[in-house]
Amino acid sequence: MKTTILIHCNDQAGIVHAVTGFIQAKGGNIVYLDQHVDKQANVFFMRLESDFEHSAPTLDTLNREFSKKLAVPYQMQWSIHSHNEKPKMALFVSKYNHCLYDLLSRFNAGELQVEIPFIISNHTTLKSIADQFGVPFYHIPMTKETKASAEKTQLELLVSHKVDFIVLARYMQIVSKTLIDRYPNKIINIHHSFLPAFAGAKPYHAAFERGVKIIGATSHYVTEELDAGPIIEQDVTTVSHSHSINDFIAKGRDLEKIVLSRAVKLHVERKTMVYNNKTVIFS
Amino acid sequence: MKTTILIHCNDQAGIVHAVTGFIQAKGGNIVYLDQHVDKQANVFFMRLESDFEHSAPTLDTLNREFSKKLAVPYQMQWSIHSHNEKPKMALFVSKYNHCLYDLLSRFNAGELQVEIPFIISNHTTLKSIADQFGVPFYHIPMTKETKASAEKTQLELLVSHKVDFIVLARYMQIVSKTLIDRYPNKIINIHHSFLPAFAGAKPYHAAFERGVKIIGATSHYVTEELDAGPIIEQDVTTVSHSHSINDFIAKGRDLEKIVLSRAVKLHVERKTMVYNNKTVIFS
Amino acid sequence: MKTTILIHCNDQAGIVHAVTGFIQAKGGNIVYLDQHVDKQANVFFMRLESDFEHSAPTLDTLNREFSKKLAVPYQMQWSIHSHNEKPKMALFVSKYNHCLYDLLSRFNAGELQVEIPFIISNHTTLKSIADQFGVPFYHIPMTKETKASAEKTQLELLVSHKVDFIVLARYMQIVSKTLIDRYPNKIINIHHSFLPAFAGAKPYHAAFERGVKIIGATSHYVTEELDAGPIIEQDVTTVSHSHSINDFIAKGRDLEKIVLSRAVKLHVERKTMVYNNKTVIFS
Amino acid sequence: MKTTILIHCNDQAGIVHAVTGFIQAKGGNIVYLDQHVDKQANVFFMRLESDFEHSAPTLDTLNREFSKKLAVPYQMQWSIHSHNEKPKMALFVSKYNHCLYDLLSRFNAGELQVEIPFIISNHTTLKSIADQFGVPFYHIPMTKETKASAEKTQLELLVSHKVDFIVLARYMQIVSKTLIDRYPNKIINIHHSFLPAFAGAKPYHAAFERGVKIIGATSHYVTEELDAGPIIEQDVTTVSHSHSINDFIAKGRDLEKIVLSRAVKLHVERKTMVYNNKTVIFS
Repeated sequence: MKTTILIHCNDQAGIVHAVTGFIQAKGGNIVYLDQHVDKQANVFFMRLESDFEHSAPTLDTLNREFSKKLAVPYQMQWSIHSHNEKPKMALFVSKYNHCLYDLLSRFNAGELQVEIPFIISNHTTLKSIADQFGVPFYHIPMTKETKASAEKTQLELLVSHKVDFIVLARYMQIVSKTLIDRYPNKIINIHHSFLPAFAGAKPYHAAFERGVKIIGATSHYVTEELDAGPIIEQDVTTVSHSHSINDFIAKGRDLEKIVLSRAVKLHVERKTMVYNNKTVIFS
Repeated sequence: MKTTILIHCNDQAGIVHAVTGFIQAKGGNIVYLDQHVDKQANVFFMRLESDFEHSAPTLDTLNREFSKKLAVPYQMQWSIHSHNEKPKMALFVSKYNHCLYDLLSRFNAGELQVEIPFIISNHTTLKSIADQFGVPFYHIPMTKETKASAEKTQLELLVSHKVDFIVLARYMQIVSKTLIDRYPNKIINIHHSFLPAFAGAKPYHAAFERGVKIIGATSHYVTEELDAGPIIEQDVTTVSHSHSINDFIAKGRDLEKIVLSRAVKLHVERKTMVYNNKTVIFS
Repeated sequence: MKTTILIHCNDQAGIVHAVTGFIQAKGGNIVYLDQHVDKQANVFFMRLESDFEHSAPTLDTLNREFSKKLAVPYQMQWSIHSHNEKPKMALFVSKYNHCLYDLLSRFNAGELQVEIPFIISNHTTLKSIADQFGVPFYHIPMTKETKASAEKTQLELLVSHKVDFIVLARYMQIVSKTLIDRYPNKIINIHHSFLPAFAGAKPYHAAFERGVKIIGATSHYVTEELDAGPIIEQDVTTVSHSHSINDFIAKGRDLEKIVLSRAVKLHVERKTMVYNNKTVIFS
Repeated sequence: MKTTILIHCNDQAGIVHAVTGFIQAKGGNIVYLDQHVDKQANVFFMRLESDFEHSAPTLDTLNREFSKKLAVPYQMQWSIHSHNEKPKMALFVSKYNHCLYDLLSRFNAGELQVEIPFIISNHTTLKSIADQFGVPFYHIPMTKETKASAEKTQLELLVSHKVDFIVLARYMQIVSKTLIDRYPNKIINIHHSFLPAFAGAKPYHAAFERGVKIIGATSHYVTEELDAGPIIEQDVTTVSHSHSINDFIAKGRDLEKIVLSRAVKLHVERKTMVYNNKTVIFS
C-alpha cells in the first residue's frame, strides 16, 4: 500500500524524527518528505509519501496507531490517504465550455486520478459535451427565487454520490454558505483575474479599462467571502494596447483551463494544505 | 537627421497615406512605422521613425510644415523628435539603492541615451553612490511641514537644469500636484506590486498576507491619484509558501529594477503614448 | 468584404504610401496595418486588414488591380484573402491525444475559423475521439515498406478535399519531400522541445539527462531538414531536480497543446510570413 | 551557531530519522529540511539548516561526531558549514560590464554574504569599475602563448587569498583543466544562451539566424567540456522578428545578470549539490 500523510501542528522539536521513526517502525519506506515551518505562525506542515509494500498494515491500523503515537501527543491535525482511493469530483458548470472540455479531456486521457460521478449546470448549454464524454449531466435551473431549493437538490446529489470535492469550472454562480460549510476547502474555483486584482464580475473588462500589461487567472478554494479564499495556483500572460477585450478573453481562456487543471491535480494528489486562509503547496 | 514622430487624433480615412506621403515628399525614408487604432475610443495612434539623411530639412521646418499640412487638417496632437536630442532625466531617490545602482550602471554602460543632471533625495543615504558615479546629489529633506518648500526647491532645480522627465527610483514620497502638473506623463514611478493589486504602502506585506503565488512590479506615469496612473510596464515572478516577506522583498528588488529600466528606455525612445489613462507602447 | 493582404518585396521608398493609396482608392478602410523591414536582408513585409464594406469590389477585381498597380511595379510577392474563406485544415495524429483533444475542443467552441475535412492517423488509437467530435477519421497504416504508397493515399485525400494546410498534432512520423513540396510552409508541426535544443527523438529524455531547468515546446513549419523549419511559436516552463521524466512529459503536454494551438491560430488568421527559413509574426 | 549540512549517499531506509536524531541529540533545532531522492540513480540528497544557539558545539566537534555516527556508517559525502563563514569569491571579467556592475552593486547593498578579495581581467577595460567599488583589480593579459603562465599567476592569487569559488562574469576565456581541477564545481559561468542550444561562441547571432522566439541565459558550473557543466539556473525572455541582433544582446544582458546573480546566491547559500553532471537545487 502506498500512502500520503498530511500533518500540521504547532512547531515543536523532534517532529520529523518522531514521524519518520513511526513510518520506519511500521515497515514503511519514505518516498517523498516535504516539510514547511511557518515561522510567523509557528506552525509545522508535513507531507509524506510512504510505501508499505512489504509490511502492509491496513489503513485503519495506520490511522489508529498514528493517532495514538503521534497525533495525540503532538496535537496534530492529520490525514492518511491510500493511493488506491480515487476521490470523487463533481463538476459545476454554466455556459463556458473551455474548462469543462479541458478537464474531461484530461480525465479521458488518464491524467486525473478521480471519478466524475456527474456534472451539474444551471443551463443546458453544455449537456452535449457531457454526453460526448459519457458523464451524467444534471440540469438544475437556478433563479433568485429557486436558489435555496436548487442548492438543496445539488446537495442531495453530492451526498448520494459521496462526492469528495467540487470543481467550479466557470460556474458563474455564487455558492452559498450551506455548500461551503459542507465542503470546507473542498470547492475549487477558477477566477479569471490575477487576484486580488479584479475580484468580482467582469474582470477582463476591468483589466482592459485599467490598461494592465499582464492578465492572470487564479484558482482558489471557495470561502464565504467572494474571490477571497486560499489561493492554490495563479498564472499570467502578457497583453498590450493592441489587444481588445475579446483578445483578453481568448487569452484568458487558455490561462483559466491550465490554472484550474493544475489546481485540481494538486488537490487530487493531496499536495495542498490550508492554514490561515493561505495554502501550503507541496509540488 | 533621424526623427521620431508621434501622432494621435480621431481615426479618419487616409491618415497613414497622408503622413507617409508627407515624409516621402520631404525626402525622408521611413524606417519604422507602427500604428494602432483604439476602436472603442475611435482614436488613431502612430509612431514613425524616419531618416532624412540626404534631404536634411531642419527640425523647425519639419515642425512647421507638418503642422500646416497634416496636424491642422487632421486635428492631430503630435510631436517630432530629433535623435540628436538627449533628454534630461532627473532621479528622485530615498533610501533603497537597487534601482539607483541599476539605472546608473546602465547609464555608464551606454544603455540609456539621456543626460542625468542630478539626483534628488530626502535622505543622504545614497549620496555615496551618486559620488561613485560622479552625478550631482542634492539632499532636500522633507517633512510634513517642509513639504511645500522642499518641492519648491526641487522645482527650481528641475527648471534651471531644463529637466525633461523625472524617474522616481523608489522615492517613497507622494509627489504633489504642482510637480505633476508641470510634468504631465513625464514622471515615471516604480511600484512594488502588480497593480492594481496592492496599491499603496507595504505591498509585499499585503501580498504575503493574501497568500498570492505570483508577485509583480509596475512602472507607471504618476498622476494625482496614488498608484493609478497609466501603466507602462509590468512583470511578475513566482513565489510560494516557503518564501518569507524578506524573500518577497529580495525577489521584488530584481523585478523593480528590470521593470523600471524597461519603462525608462521606452520613454526615452519615445515608444510610449498616453490616452485615457492608458498607454500605447510601440515596442 | 473584409480582406487581409500579405506582401513582401525588396524594401523601397514609398511602398506604404502606394499600398495605402490603393486601398483608399478602392473604397477600402484600413483596419490594421503592420509592417516590418528586415534590414539585413533589405526585405519589406506588410500585413494589412481592410474593410470594403461599402465599395465591395470582388476578390478577383482586387487581385487583378493589385497585381497591375502594385505587385508588378514593386516586384512583390503577395496574397489577398477574403475573411469569408474558411481554410481547410487536415489533422495528422498518431497515438497521443492531448493536442487532438485541444484542437477539436477549440474548433467546437468556435475558436478556430477553419473547416476540418478529416483526421489521418497511422494508428486507430484516436479514432474514438474523432468519432466523439464527428470528424471523419482515416486510418492509413504506415511501415517502412508501405510509406510511399501510404503517403500517396494521404495526398489523394488532401487533394480531393482541397485541404489548405496540415497540422501534425504529435504525428510522430517524418513527412516526406513529396508532401512538403506540395504544401510549402503549410504543414505545421509541434516539437516537444525548445528548438534548436533537443531536436529529433525523445527530447524530454534528453532534457532530463542534461539537467536543464526549463523545458519548452516549438511549433514550426515543416521543411525537409528535420525539426529545422521556420519557427512560429515557442513557450517554456520551469522544471527542477525534483521532476521525473514523466513529470517533464506531463508538463510538456500542456506546453505542446498551447503552443500548437497558438501557431494554428496565427496561421489561420494569416499573421505568419516566411522568409529565409524564419517567420515574421504579426500578432 | 547556525549551520547548513549537505549530504548525499546511496538511498537507504532510515537516513532522515538518523540525521534528525543526531541534530536533536546535539541540542540543535532544525530550521529547514529539504531532501530529494534520485530514483534512477538511487541517490539520497539532503540539506538541513539547524540552529545550535543554546547547545553550541564547535564546528570541529560537529564534524567529528557527524563523521563517526553518520557519515561513516551510511557512507555519506557530506559537509557542514557555519553561517559565520563568509566564502571568498573571486571575479573574472573581460570587457563586458553589466554582470560586474550587478554583482558589485548587490555586494555593496548587502545582498551577497561573501568577501571579494579581487577581480581578475585579461583587459583593463573594467578597472575603473573595480576602483569605483574599491575592489582590487589584477590585470593579467592573456594570449595563446602566455595562457599557461597567466593561469599560473591567476592560481597563485587564488591560493594566496584562499579563494573559495570563482565567478566568471562574462570572462570570455576558456578556463583550463588546471583551474577546474583545483575548483571542482566551484567555478560559476554565465553563458548567454538557453543551453544546450547555442553553446560556444556568438550565441545571440546563432539564435537570431535560427529565428527563435525566445532567448535565454544559463549559469552552470564549469567543467572541461565547454558549456556542458551542471546547470544551476536558467531564464528566458521572448523575442520577435522585429528585434535585431543588438536587441537580442540588450535583452540578453538583463537575463545574464539576473541568472548569474541567482546562481551565485544559490551557491553562497549552499543550496546547490552536484551529481552526475546535474544539480540538485534546494531553493
